[in-house]
Amino acid sequence: MTPTLADSVRLTDDGVLILDRRNFPFSREWVLCRTSSEVVKAIEDMVTQSSGPYFAALYGMVLAAREAAGLRPHAAYAYMEQAGTRLIRARSTNNHLRKAVHAVLSSVSGSGESLVSAAVAGAKAGDELYRSRSRTLGTAAAALLPSEGGVLTHCWADLYLVELVDAAQRSGKRLRFFCTETRPYLQGARLTAETLAEMGVDTTLISDGMGAAVLQSGEVDALVTAADRVTMAGHVINKVGTLGLAVAAAAFNVPFYALVQAPDQDARTADDVPLEYRPGEDVLHTLGMRTASDKVRGLYPAFDVTPPRFVTSIVTDRGPFEPHRIAEYYAEGEPNQ
Amino acid sequence: MTPTLADSVRLTDDGVLILDRRNFPFSREWVLCRTSSEVVKAIEDMVTQSSGPYFAALYGMVLAAREAAGLRPHAAYAYMEQAGTRLIRARSTNNHLRKAVHAVLSSVSGSGESLVSAAVAGAKAGDELYRSRSRTLGTAAAALLPSEGGVLTHCWADLYLVELVDAAQRSGKRLRFFCTETRPYLQGARLTAETLAEMGVDTTLISDGMGAAVLQSGEVDALVTAADRVTMAGHVINKVGTLGLAVAAAAFNVPFYALVQAPDQDARTADDVPLEYRPGEDVLHTLGMRTASDKVRGLYPAFDVTPPRFVTSIVTDRGPFEPHRIAEYYAEGEPNQ
Repeated sequence: MTPTLADSVRLTDDGVLILDRRNFPFSREWVLCRTSSEVVKAIEDMVTQSSGPYFAALYGMVLAAREAAGLRPHAAYAYMEQAGTRLIRARSTNNHLRKAVHAVLSSVSGSGESLVSAAVAGAKAGDELYRSRSRTLGTAAAALLPSEGGVLTHCWADLYLVELVDAAQRSGKRLRFFCTETRPYLQGARLTAETLAEMGVDTTLISDGMGAAVLQSGEVDALVTAADRVTMAGHVINKVGTLGLAVAAAAFNVPFYALVQAPDQDARTADDVPLEYRPGEDVLHTLGMRTASDKVRGLYPAFDVTPPRFVTSIVTDRGPFEPHRIAEYYAEGEPNQ
Repeated sequence: MTPTLADSVRLTDDGVLILDRRNFPFSREWVLCRTSSEVVKAIEDMVTQSSGPYFAALYGMVLAAREAAGLRPHAAYAYMEQAGTRLIRARSTNNHLRKAVHAVLSSVSGSGESLVSAAVAGAKAGDELYRSRSRTLGTAAAALLPSEGGVLTHCWADLYLVELVDAAQRSGKRLRFFCTETRPYLQGARLTAETLAEMGVDTTLISDGMGAAVLQSGEVDALVTAADRVTMAGHVINKVGTLGLAVAAAAFNVPFYALVQAPDQDARTADDVPLEYRPGEDVLHTLGMRTASDKVRGLYPAFDVTPPRFVTSIVTDRGPFEPHRIAEYYAEGEPNQ
């Protein structure tokens, strides 16, 4: 079955429906954005995250096209560009938003179709392209896993994980997953564990400190996470906690596969990637409830950097690469995007 | 100042007062146990933990002496033995309870004093012995730390930590502490961070997944934890999460010091130590609130085993030993206990 989060942004006649991930899976509420501005606000308010903002921006641009449909062509395009700029600014560090806006704008600009039809076509193509690249890399990652075995994952690898599991299931592999809860936002407990369970996968949740013990136990055949960014030197930048698991995996001879569509040509090495710090207060709370007193300061580096020596393979939509060979991804030129 | 948790079991005329650690520091409530049976129940109900049950058992035995004060000597001693057996059974894996009961019984049996006076003297001596051994090892651990620097700790090292900090402060060292929150019970967030803050230490709380990033950052000069048990081969058994931090510390050249009064002569190697599993449901909740859905299974190994190759020194009340030389602790015979 398609898990809830794999289809959590939908275009309707009334607007864009976005599943609210902030309290998922405890409630399953959809936010209806009637205008492109409401999509901007939903992204800013973190109604959705991970690949969600990409899909929200694609369909937010369709709403912008509907809003601009009565204008003359030049004014309509300018309106859509403005809406696109606001969508991109809604989450500044997420490069996917730029790609989504570009996909719709380029479809509109060269088209003889009506503005709205062209925007819909561009959004659908962007949607399918993201899914097909995720499917290709998920299939390549599944091929690295044994026909039966355990996988440890961290945070929320979103469509990469869904496609990996789908590919494994299609090829008859029986995988058991361990997920870390991923404090402070609990993406692992709330998004990953729930999605795996929805897909019928044997799913065990552990706290973030238990990963090394599970890797040492022999029950895990691979550590698999997404990567928010991969440098051309093979560093994996991902949700904080990935580094500790990668180091433990290396110590106990478990391979670590990091999933990313493509490495970032703008990041030669880790020094080129600014690491985001979020409010330390978030570490002092869980689901809004205080878990430490106000005498104490919290620290919240959102990401960490795993050096190439702790990475076995980086699995892309062009297959797996050893980290020191990841630059070869571009040997066949730029991917479609 | 003496932090709250360093003086959290008190003998009064009315009974034994035990600070309730289950909701500390959000509330500071003391449970009054009027009888030795009520002390048993408080220990069973986890009102206190770590070194708390040791002190509760010492003073619980004084209550047993008060209860037996009207009996003839032989019957009084038998009564106290029975109370001691029940205290020991209150937390079966905690070897400290046996030592506490023994300390009071041996004081009573050889004494010409009144039963109650002898019991009080035995309890006070047991109390002071535990504190002095903790002080010796805390002082030895502080000596390994730089005059200014960062320390990462995990879970709750109780009096060992208090004495380490006290020794460091007396010798003018300026230490900054990072504490992991230690899910699922949040001992780090609730007990360690609060106690360090009470002692005036610069204290930063991180989630359990952030330890490796902090160790990689260069801000930490040592990883310091207690050990629930140390084998004669130098394995450190401690709260789950210790292993991952130890492996990361080794990877980033940060020393790991494990604190224990003495290694366990009954544990030649890690295979001799049964590891406790607690209810997996605990991982699906935080402070009683659900953090994952009921579709998912939780796993809760309470401890993990750090092999000697990831341990720099085991710091005892006879000073630090490299892990492969820890058996030399007993070269001078048994310690007082």
